[in-house]
Amino acid sequence: MDGFEDKEFEYESGRKYVSDSVISRLPRYFRYLRMLLESGRTRINSTELSSLMHLTASQIRQDLNCFGGFGKQGVGYDIRYLHTCISAILGADRQYTAVIIGAGDLGRALARSRMFSGRGITVLSLFDVNRQLIGQETADILIRDMDELVPFCCANKVDIAVLTVPKESFEDAVRRIGEAGIKGVWNFTSMELDPEQQGFVIENVHLGDSLQRLTYHLRVAQDKEKEN
Amino acid sequence: MDGFEDKEFEYESGRKYVSDSVISRLPRYFRYLRMLLESGRTRINSTELSSLMHLTASQIRQDLNCFGGFGKQGVGYDIRYLHTCISAILGADRQYTAVIIGAGDLGRALARSRMFSGRGITVLSLFDVNRQLIGQETADILIRDMDELVPFCCANKVDIAVLTVPKESFEDAVRRIGEAGIKGVWNFTSMELDPEQQGFVIENVHLGDSLQRLTYHLRVAQDKEKEN
Repeated sequence: MDGFEDKEFEYESGRKYVSDSVISRLPRYFRYLRMLLESGRTRINSTELSSLMHLTASQIRQDLNCFGGFGKQGVGYDIRYLHTCISAILGADRQYTAVIIGAGDLGRALARSRMFSGRGITVLSLFDVNRQLIGQETADILIRDMDELVPFCCANKVDIAVLTVPKESFEDAVRRIGEAGIKGVWNFTSMELDPEQQGFVIENVHLGDSLQRLTYHLRVAQDKEKEN
Repeated sequence: MDGFEDKEFEYESGRKYVSDSVISRLPRYFRYLRMLLESGRTRINSTELSSLMHLTASQIRQDLNCFGGFGKQGVGYDIRYLHTCISAILGADRQYTAVIIGAGDLGRALARSRMFSGRGITVLSLFDVNRQLIGQETADILIRDMDELVPFCCANKVDIAVLTVPKESFEDAVRRIGEAGIKGVWNFTSMELDPEQQGFVIENVHLGDSLQRLTYHLRVAQDKEKEN
């Protein structure tokens, strides 16, 4: 780890120039670098990374050059160093806490996934209005009454609300998230939050929209086939 | 519906000029227009649509102008007409079939959601390698042996594979999807498909990447707070 602090400073100072489009691709790099680390690899060049990630090698060199000095001609990238830097940029080296609001099929499936723990996030509780679910546990995490959300968050610092409620409960849930002082919202509902109004950091996963982009591309492909 | 066919032709001819960024926003319009229809509304102007969707009114006018002549000054948009046009563009007025590959928590949660039926998609079956799951039903849909995937798809025309397998099973699943002649892949795995190689239409939902974009923005917000 000789010279590591210098390098870290380099990326810290370089960070300000990283564009949003590069940032949006960083989780993908993070994902593949972690897989490579887990498989015991230490170095990789842009050509091999390119065929793994299905990005062009020049795209990869461009993206990673933003941080300065990661790759060396003929030697390739130091996987662990790259992974450490990208972790720090993404905040994946910090610890966060989360609650899941809505303990339906999706909320419970998310609670059982390893997605959170793999990213330094601890899920503290699920919340629901359904009396039949309240008091149950899923993946050792208790489902609490929605009325307990605000007091629970006052007693426990909560960074992230994972929102999986039906649209009828959306307004109420957003109001409570605001009252609870939660800053980050991972939004799985079919509704949009107003970032201006509440000062939230929001990441939307509109699964239905994604599915519909797929049918759009299928329709275009079908129509092309018919034309030929 | 007087003059409807003319209007439809107008959008058909206009379609070729619709940019990818507009297309990517169309599912969001579709979602809100459907909610408005369900609530019994017939017309809406760009200002009101703007406050609902949290897009600027000028963005909305720009997006919808792509299709030509939807809005009228002072009268607003005809919601049903707009919904019909956008449905046709997105292929939401067609019927598709899907199979879910991987009957774990996420696969089963998706099978139970109303997302597919609301978009003209029928889920025919789930597939898994786990002997304990094979033969069970979830939301009246049978979980079949993964070895039956290719023969099942030969007997039933299948448009979409919803891929929710762990990364160890990814390569095998992709090979079988190719053999089964399925064209559309809704990919929930942590791996990337190669569109060139298989001629797939792919829509990726990398949930972990989305979660990590959220922690990135939380980290930036935290760091800003510390600076002030």
